[in-house]
Formats: sequence, C-alpha cells, structure tokens
Amino acid sequence: MLGGWKYANIKDGSFAEYFHVNNANANLTPIPDSISDDTAVYVCDMLSTGFMGAEHANIPLGGTVVVFAQGPVGLMATVGARLLGAGLVIGVDGVSERLKLSRHFGADVVLDYTQVDPVEEIRKLTGVGVDSAIECLGAQATFEACIKATRPGGTISVAGYFGHGDSVEIPRVEWGVGMGDKVIRTGLCPGGNVRMSRLLKLIEHGRVDPSPLTTHQFDFQEVDKALHMMETKEDGIMKPLIIFPVS
Amino acid sequence: MLGGWKYANIKDGSFAEYFHVNNANANLTPIPDSISDDTAVYVCDMLSTGFMGAEHANIPLGGTVVVFAQGPVGLMATVGARLLGAGLVIGVDGVSERLKLSRHFGADVVLDYTQVDPVEEIRKLTGVGVDSAIECLGAQATFEACIKATRPGGTISVAGYFGHGDSVEIPRVEWGVGMGDKVIRTGLCPGGNVRMSRLLKLIEHGRVDPSPLTTHQFDFQEVDKALHMMETKEDGIMKPLIIFPVS
Amino acid sequence: MLGGWKYANIKDGSFAEYFHVNNANANLTPIPDSISDDTAVYVCDMLSTGFMGAEHANIPLGGTVVVFAQGPVGLMATVGARLLGAGLVIGVDGVSERLKLSRHFGADVVLDYTQVDPVEEIRKLTGVGVDSAIECLGAQATFEACIKATRPGGTISVAGYFGHGDSVEIPRVEWGVGMGDKVIRTGLCPGGNVRMSRLLKLIEHGRVDPSPLTTHQFDFQEVDKALHMMETKEDGIMKPLIIFPVS
Amino acid sequence: MLGGWKYANIKDGSFAEYFHVNNANANLTPIPDSISDDTAVYVCDMLSTGFMGAEHANIPLGGTVVVFAQGPVGLMATVGARLLGAGLVIGVDGVSERLKLSRHFGADVVLDYTQVDPVEEIRKLTGVGVDSAIECLGAQATFEACIKATRPGGTISVAGYFGHGDSVEIPRVEWGVGMGDKVIRTGLCPGGNVRMSRLLKLIEHGRVDPSPLTTHQFDFQEVDKALHMMETKEDGIMKPLIIFPVS
Repeated sequence: MLGGWKYANIKDGSFAEYFHVNNANANLTPIPDSISDDTAVYVCDMLSTGFMGAEHANIPLGGTVVVFAQGPVGLMATVGARLLGAGLVIGVDGVSERLKLSRHFGADVVLDYTQVDPVEEIRKLTGVGVDSAIECLGAQATFEACIKATRPGGTISVAGYFGHGDSVEIPRVEWGVGMGDKVIRTGLCPGGNVRMSRLLKLIEHGRVDPSPLTTHQFDFQEVDKALHMMETKEDGIMKPLIIFPVS
Repeated sequence: MLGGWKYANIKDGSFAEYFHVNNANANLTPIPDSISDDTAVYVCDMLSTGFMGAEHANIPLGGTVVVFAQGPVGLMATVGARLLGAGLVIGVDGVSERLKLSRHFGADVVLDYTQVDPVEEIRKLTGVGVDSAIECLGAQATFEACIKATRPGGTISVAGYFGHGDSVEIPRVEWGVGMGDKVIRTGLCPGGNVRMSRLLKLIEHGRVDPSPLTTHQFDFQEVDKALHMMETKEDGIMKPLIIFPVS
Repeated sequence: MLGGWKYANIKDGSFAEYFHVNNANANLTPIPDSISDDTAVYVCDMLSTGFMGAEHANIPLGGTVVVFAQGPVGLMATVGARLLGAGLVIGVDGVSERLKLSRHFGADVVLDYTQVDPVEEIRKLTGVGVDSAIECLGAQATFEACIKATRPGGTISVAGYFGHGDSVEIPRVEWGVGMGDKVIRTGLCPGGNVRMSRLLKLIEHGRVDPSPLTTHQFDFQEVDKALHMMETKEDGIMKPLIIFPVS
Repeated sequence: MLGGWKYANIKDGSFAEYFHVNNANANLTPIPDSISDDTAVYVCDMLSTGFMGAEHANIPLGGTVVVFAQGPVGLMATVGARLLGAGLVIGVDGVSERLKLSRHFGADVVLDYTQVDPVEEIRKLTGVGVDSAIECLGAQATFEACIKATRPGGTISVAGYFGHGDSVEIPRVEWGVGMGDKVIRTGLCPGGNVRMSRLLKLIEHGRVDPSPLTTHQFDFQEVDKALHMMETKEDGIMKPLIIFPVS
C-alpha cells in the first residue's frame, strides 16, 4: 500500500539531477520530440492520478459525472471524464479561477459551492443523481456530497488524499442503507511505461494540454519557496514549474 | 433504489395464497420436480442475497475471503465464496451454533469474536489481509473490521442492512487514507427468472442445500409468533418455515 | 439472438406514421428540444451500433485503435473510439470521400487500402499492433486484417454484419495459435431508453454531430428509390433521410 | 506473445537439476509442507492453464458450461468450471477412461462424441445453448462445436493449442452472422507467484487434487520414453511423472 507515494516522497534523490528508478525497464518511456519537458512532466502524477479518478468511476458512454474540487488533480479528472465519454461533466469548486479552468478543461456545467448547494443543483440537473462522482480533495464534505449526488448503482471514485481524523463518514441513508449498490473506489497514481506512453500519446495527439496548470515558474534554488507556496496556495498557485540549471 | 425491498415488504398480499407478480414473464421460473418447495423458497432471498455478497466481492480464484456474521445471509455468502473459487474462507460470528453451521457450509476456518480479535487472527492467517471481506450484519463494528481485514486492492462487499445512525464510519488509515484501492460495494437481493433458474440449478445439482437454515416450522396461523421469534432470535432460530394450509 | 434486427426488419409497420413499440416504457425516451428529428434519428442505430463497436473494444485510455471501413457505422465507431479515450485512431477505407469524413469524425490517421497495405502501415505506426481493432464491414478481408493488426492481448470488436459463406476464417498464426489472448467480440445494436437518452446527451452537449452522414434526402413516396440507392451505394450515398409528409 | 511457452520450451536448462528463473522474486513461491512435490508440479501448467480456460469463460453463478476434450487441461478446466460456480458442467471426449475422470473431477454430465452428437445433446440439456464453452484440444471440430453449443451472449474460451492449417473457421450462422454477442477468448498459461500461491491454496484446502492425472512414472534416464509416450498417448497415458535422482 502506498508504494508509489514512498517512491516519490521518501526515497532519496527525487530532487537530484539524476535519480535511481527501480525496474527502469518497466518504468521509463521515451518522451516524443513533439512534447516539451515542462508538459511531459505532468504525465507522472497529475494526468495519471486525475485520469485514474475518471477510470475508476465506471462512466457509461454518455453518462453524467461530477468532479468535486478543481485543483490540478480535479481538473485532470474533468479532462479524464470527457476523454472517457461522459455526456455531462459538472465541475465543483469555490474559487472562480478554478471554475474558469474547469470550463476550459471540459466541464459542461460548473458549480460554485460558495453560491449554491452542489448536491441540490446536481439533483436538478440529473433527476436521480449522477452516474459517477469523483472526489479530488480528500475531505469529509466532498466525500459526503459524492455519496449524496450519486444515483443508486452509481460509482464514487476517490482520487483525493485523506489526511486527517480517525474516520471518514458515509451518510447512511443516501448510501442506500447499505443496499443502494453504490460503489466506493479509491486508488493511488498508477505508473509504468505502458501507461506513461499512453498518456504521452494523448498529449501528442492533442487530446489534452496540461500546460495551463503551470501558473508559476522557479529556478531550482527557489524550490523551497515553491514548496511553501504549494502549502499556502497563495497567489492562486496551481502548479509551480522548477527549472534545473543546465550547465 | 430499494425497489425489491418495497415489493416484498410493502406491496399488499405477500402473505396471501395468491400474489400478484409484476412482469411475471421476467420474474417467474418453474421449480424442478426434484426440489421441494421448502428448499426452493430460499432462492428468492437468502441464496440470492448471500451469493450476491460473494459475487460483488471480486474473489480471485484461490483467493482469501472473510465473511462477517454467520446468520442466514452470511452462511449463504460463505457458500457463495466457496462456489466462486475462494481458496480460504473464514467465517466470523459469536454464536457457536452458527459457527458450526459456518463449517458445515464451507468455511475452512471459523473465528468466534467473543474469544479472539478477528482482524488480528485474519492478519496472522493471511499476512497482508484477505482479498475479499463480506459484511452480512449491517453494523459499524463488522463494517470497520472488513476494511481493516482487507489487503490493499481488495474488496469489501456489503450484504447487510444498515438500520441505525446518521453515518457509517470508514477507518481512515486502514482504508489507505483514500489511496489503498479498496473497493466498497453494496447491493440488494437480485431477482429475475434467469437468476432464479440458475440458483435452482445449483440446488438441483447438489452444489448447495439450504435446508439446514430451517430451524423452526409453523402453520400459517402462527405467522405472528414466527415473526416475533425472528425479531428476538430466541431459541436459536435461523429461519422459520411457514406452512400454508392446503384445502 | 437478433431480436433487435427482427424488430426493425420484420415487424409490420416500421415505415408507418405510427408504430407499435414493445415495452414502450423501457424503450422510448424524449428527444430534447435542442435536437432536431433528423439528427435524433441516428441514435437508434448508427450511433448505438458504431459506439457499441468501440465499447466492446476494451480501449485503454490513450490506447491505439483501428477502425476498418468508414461507412456510417464505421464513422460512428471512429467517433466512439475518440469518445472512449483512444490516443491514436486509425481509419481505413478505399473511398476518398469516406476517408475525408473519417478525419472529420476524429481519425488521427487514415489509410486508403487501395494505396497501402493497412496491416503493414499499422505495424509501422504501433510496433506491436493496435490495442483494439473494430470491424465495420462484415467481410473476410477486414476481419482477417483486424486479427493481424491487433497486438497480443488486444481486442477485435465486430460491428459488421456477415452475410455470406459458411464460415469466417481466423488466421491461425496471427491469432497466436489459440494462445495470443486476443478477444473476438461481436454484438447487435443495443437499445433501451437509458442508452437512448445517454446518446442524445452526447449530441446535446456537442460531443458528436451525426448530421454529415445524411448525404441525400427524399420524400416518403421516394422511399423505394432511397432503398435502392442504399443497395447500389451510387452517387456516394451515406445515409438518405426520408421525410414523412405532415398533414 | 507466447513468452511463457518460450520460457518452458526453448530456454536451456528446463530439464536440468537447477534452472534459472527470470524475475525470480515475482515468479517463485514456497510450496506448503502439506503438498508433495509431485502434486505441486501441476500448478505450473495444468491447473493454471485449465483454470484459465474456466476463468476466461465468464461463467455466471449457476450457469451452464461445456468442456470439449478431457485431457489434463480439459479435466482441470472441468474442475475450474466447478470451482467458479457453474450449475451444470458437461464434459465431452471420446475415450471412456477420460470420461470417467471427467466425472471424478466434477462433470455433472459426460458426452461421448463417438456415440452422440454433443451439440445436439447440449441443446437438449440447455435449450438455448450453454453460457460458456471451453475448448481444450486445439482442433477445428471442437472449436466449431463450441460456437454452435453456446447461447447468444455466451463465451467461448480457448485453452487448446492450434498447431495446424492456415486458419480456424468460425461457423458463420451459429456465430450469429457477427451479431450474436458471442465472445471468443484465448490465452496462455498465466504465471507469477501470486497466482501460484493461490493455486497451491486450492490444493492445500482440498478444493482439488490433481494427482489422478499422473498415470505413469519414470526415472529421469527414461525421460525420452516419457516424451515419446506423450506423443503417442499409448497405454492411456495422461501425464508421466519424471523423478530426478536424489544423490
């Protein structure tokens, strides 16, 4: 469990110029010439995690999907829902800049939870609830909303990281008292060279361009500042690009 | 949601000699001569619900399965896990008579939760946790134990009815903080004549004999007593058989 | 088997102003105001059949897909492959007008089989072969090419109708001598109101516009001429629209 | 394609006392003390291949299955069909000794194709045809019979090796003219330590005992004789056990 996370977060050297990759044969793939490094870097995590959120959501062709939270992972889940054939994609967030990006990345409808009750609006739009809800924040409120917004027989796909508390609560009645055939699925960013090369193909052939996620850019010596901003989310930062000095 | 439940519990006439069946063409199936009515009656709910618990559990061939609670549904989930290729089936309950039936119906190992900590024992038996856990009670304690007893990437299948409280709690850490790829699935007794005839085939060809579930028998005029005993569970009752008078 | 075909082709009245629909409750769905009738009519067959071809093809997100034959069903399979997340879609036909439509409907690469050997070209483009091949003609040559063009572990999805001969031949070696884990799947246009309303949603929200398939238009009294042209395929006909007189 | 076959058949040393195993970490698993070596050896191929035949067959719980050919792989497919919940298993062969073993390993009905037309008998037993047919010989006649014996929407799973001819023929009409939604799936013996340990668990807990497959036993110096007999199938040989001398 959490092997990929350990690889990226605990293994020494992930910020060094050269980095040891386990089972390189199975994990490395060439970047096509037509894709710049600052775009390609997104396939390792944001694309793979966000798309996984959509892949785990059992979206029927033409189905309805809501994505809760439109940060980098949520935005890529929005793209993923479009790529996998959703007929209606609803993006939910409370920051207007993110809702604008949500539209840019393919949401048909965006809901600002500071203005409306998303579950109520989703009910109005879909009647019985969405086929699939994707949780991209890792919070009780959004998890709960996912259960409530999903139709019987639908799927709740969790891409967020739940960092606090002893437990996460499933609202009993909206879960169908254990009989609503609602699937709750979670996952961790999938890797491997077959997946990486497929994700690169999606960029190469114009299905997705993640570069609008890069709102800030830093030299390597400013990496601490970048990490700090990722914590504070100040200045509307989505993702910082760190440039390694080329000698 | 819960359509089948409404059919059985709210629609008038379910205790009458003749009963209107919606879409009879799709819902009725002949009972083979070799199966007696008091055995056949189990396919409508106990077999279908218990087996559904196992079918939803993504059991790999040769995989490890735990079934929490060994009442009628749990016992049929135990049978279902065996029928679907589990290599190790663990039955958990606190009543010794039920654990005896658990062994009878195919559990390789039974655990009495009044004597041992089932999660701890399951860890000892399986190392990383079971591939699949089936919840057949509808209670916080067993639901929680299912999450804890399941390996990363495993499945928790809920066949129990959760009747109380505002929410059901997922233990956050053992759930993999939202990243353990543990699937939580629920469901309601599936019906239809294709399924019914398949379940009858399993009885007909000796794969399962549910008749040990019938611990008590009543005439129709005693139906209230039977229903009362199902609530109190007195006298070790599993399932009462109600005999309609034949004129 | 072939129930849907019998409904459309043998049941009396399919050309009448009013037509009896079996299980209307389960089969009829409202057409949204924003969709014109001449567009909506495509969801009944071309979209549903072509998309089924893609849905049966197990396309991995970012995967490679070839669609053999770019008639109306093949073009909708091309759209379907895009909608379901293909990273590279290859359209094959021998008529330049159809290859132009293939590009219009989302093929990244088109191959004219009168100019090149498609299987050879597909190998050059993909190395090991495509993940998924969709057969939309119903002919030995295209079926065979699908087997040859697909990688081990890939899927061949058949949407074409095979009208002639005693048998269809699987090329033994390229099939992996029965061990290449290549799946061959077939199907018949799926129906029902849930599917219809999802397909309409895809039109409503701009995912697909099938109207370029309509190359000709006739009044109802010319229906014989239209049917004749569908047989001869003269004048580059794709699909004729038949207008019923409104009194 | 066929990587596993190359490993077992072309790589040097597969008959030596010590043998190099690629990615040993992922491919080796301990044999439990309770399982003798001459039983354990079957998990590497016969169990894994035969069970794969059943796993690929999409057997519904309580469904009907036919297994064509009851050699070692076919017999293990018969066991696999039982383990995966089939409600009726039909074994087909032309050798009475094998039909006896077929019954021993779990077939409910056996058909001797030298006495009856299996497809006709299967129709009598099932009406519309079986849910799943498993091909365990690798021949045109059995492949064809599988297509013919399977209901619309059913699955044909191929576990046999097809060694001859340019093509394998699908009977067009019984295939539903490309529209019967019959899936044809193939595969090659799956490996890896997770699978091996699961198969061992099935032996350990009494789900299957493959030892009746061993009809003959030889010392290592007689290996040529054993291989010769496997070609001629003389003396009713199923599988020979080769004993390595222990010094």
